[in-house]
Amino acid sequence: MYEHGGVILEHRIKKIFNNTEEEIDIIIIKNSTEPFIDENFFYVTGLNKGLFEGSIVVLFPDGKLDIITSSLEAESAKKSNSNVLTYNNGEEFKEILEKYRSFDKIGINSDRLTYKAFNNLNKQFENSNFFDVSTSFSKARIIKDEKEINLIKKACNIVDKVVEEIPQIVHENITEYELAAEIDFLMQKNGAEKSAFETISSFGKNTAEPHYTHGDLKLEKGDFVLCDFGACFEKYNSDITRTFVFNKASAKQKEIFDIVSNASKVGLNKAKAGIKSKDIHNSVNSVIDNTKYKGRFIHSTGHSLGLSVHDGNYRISSNSELELKENMVFTIEPGIYLPGFGGVRIEDDVLIKEDGIELLTKSSKDFIVI
Amino acid sequence: MYEHGGVILEHRIKKIFNNTEEEIDIIIIKNSTEPFIDENFFYVTGLNKGLFEGSIVVLFPDGKLDIITSSLEAESAKKSNSNVLTYNNGEEFKEILEKYRSFDKIGINSDRLTYKAFNNLNKQFENSNFFDVSTSFSKARIIKDEKEINLIKKACNIVDKVVEEIPQIVHENITEYELAAEIDFLMQKNGAEKSAFETISSFGKNTAEPHYTHGDLKLEKGDFVLCDFGACFEKYNSDITRTFVFNKASAKQKEIFDIVSNASKVGLNKAKAGIKSKDIHNSVNSVIDNTKYKGRFIHSTGHSLGLSVHDGNYRISSNSELELKENMVFTIEPGIYLPGFGGVRIEDDVLIKEDGIELLTKSSKDFIVI
Repeated sequence: MYEHGGVILEHRIKKIFNNTEEEIDIIIIKNSTEPFIDENFFYVTGLNKGLFEGSIVVLFPDGKLDIITSSLEAESAKKSNSNVLTYNNGEEFKEILEKYRSFDKIGINSDRLTYKAFNNLNKQFENSNFFDVSTSFSKARIIKDEKEINLIKKACNIVDKVVEEIPQIVHENITEYELAAEIDFLMQKNGAEKSAFETISSFGKNTAEPHYTHGDLKLEKGDFVLCDFGACFEKYNSDITRTFVFNKASAKQKEIFDIVSNASKVGLNKAKAGIKSKDIHNSVNSVIDNTKYKGRFIHSTGHSLGLSVHDGNYRISSNSELELKENMVFTIEPGIYLPGFGGVRIEDDVLIKEDGIELLTKSSKDFIVI
Repeated sequence: MYEHGGVILEHRIKKIFNNTEEEIDIIIIKNSTEPFIDENFFYVTGLNKGLFEGSIVVLFPDGKLDIITSSLEAESAKKSNSNVLTYNNGEEFKEILEKYRSFDKIGINSDRLTYKAFNNLNKQFENSNFFDVSTSFSKARIIKDEKEINLIKKACNIVDKVVEEIPQIVHENITEYELAAEIDFLMQKNGAEKSAFETISSFGKNTAEPHYTHGDLKLEKGDFVLCDFGACFEKYNSDITRTFVFNKASAKQKEIFDIVSNASKVGLNKAKAGIKSKDIHNSVNSVIDNTKYKGRFIHSTGHSLGLSVHDGNYRISSNSELELKENMVFTIEPGIYLPGFGGVRIEDDVLIKEDGIELLTKSSKDFIVI
């Protein structure tokens, strides 16, 4: 079996074609400049390094692919064991593309292709017809293969290690952004290429805002400390949240924490292949709505996780008809948010199995006063 | 004067309209999900925090703007002093957009708008005509205003501080990725929100590959250490490269360094308002081509810098007809790359002035054996 190329990639590419509504001749993935890069480029090539700005992948229904890239990244591209075509300038780039002009039905990913890039393709392939196959990519990617699961597990191991180190880092007067910097540093020291997203490190009242990232607030005794972060390992992501209390906890803090903890357990117990994701959300939500904190869980219970942090935009939410299947990977992340007081969120990553889940984030989620 | 809103934003928005080819009624900026966010959203709103996934800005020729955002980010949006319209779901979002249907000529930024987002706008505004105004954004942004220059200067101060700390961090057997983690950490500790791009920390032979970022190579005596990194401060970026030698340098290393250093000086001396950027590149390149390392400078001399690291894709390169103007910000970054041996690059950020430049990255670029 190949590390890159070979059966895994063939299978991924065929899955994408199998999910298109029409029969498509070729699919073109086109990157623009950073950060407007289509992560499907890495999905179909199996590459886990490199920028590949402006590069193209052409996919064929038989599972083969061509990579068209600048000569500067040719060596990196060849690691994919795919057919690599290189160019030194815009003219050579156009010349290479000419050989695909005979194809009629061309699939594109409208979710990631810029309108400018589409217009350029449309000009060059004036006799072809374009079809949006963006949902084929997300449908293929929502079920992870073994290689993907292994990479997500590695990304989860990294955040687990970092969670265990947070109590040692935290001290009175540390600022939110300093703690965020320490968390990002620890992820990279433990092998992450980068943070999966801007690390949330919020204290006190700020923990009541789910979208708040970090500022220069200093930690005081009795504050909630909410850390929501992820590691990106070989392009795959993890996503974890742990909430602590600094120095001395109040009864109310403990009460909120326990409710969120119960909601988390209900979610983790309920998730398995065959269940509708809205049923999970409703069960989790009802734990909170059966307390005096009714209405204080203000976001969805989770999202699919993989090459993107919100992978394919699938959610565990009140209106999601999605039925969970084996080898999907989701977050389960209930929370309670009390403006002016603070908030608690507990987030784990889980692999969906036939009879339940495999918990991928294993670090403690007990009530911890640090 | 307002920190956000008011005269600065009005001026920015009018600049964009003044640069359109046709007379345009309104311009719509539409964000998708991270990282497919149009940085012009932050340019025109003056906001320097927040994600604003899915949010829209509508610009008017008189310099006014509406922000349309989810209720979750309403508070953040209001900091812009603009007109903020909020929605709680997709239906409300569409309803708000209805009020712009009477406009005929709508400008969009095809460089940042996904093809899917365009299709959705096109459906809702079926009687309007769309015009690509992407170059108006880059033309407006290539000349920085005072507020932008101050933010870039702060981003440059951060990397300058980090450069001074690198000699203390480096030790035998440190890996490339460990040094990258330390650099990223130091940037955040010094106030950066995040790294402007994936930090390049390459050792030995790897320094000969300009696109290589970092791996697990361990540092050995006599290695080149090439660090290319940037700080993102309130959405604005810096970009610096320094090359060191670890422990003991060879005559050849010193020779290469001195040539790059001379090329850098020529670039910094030549840059000023009124000069064509290709003339700078050619002068810099000829310093290298007049040595035995002819042909070993394999990229352009620099790029515009601002809200994006490669701001508007303007370059100082062999075929760039761009004439430099006051208050542009560019990198100057000559290099020599010898495959199998190693490479040297020296990169600075400069503010273009009438008679020369203001050097924004002030940290030492002497030949340093660490």
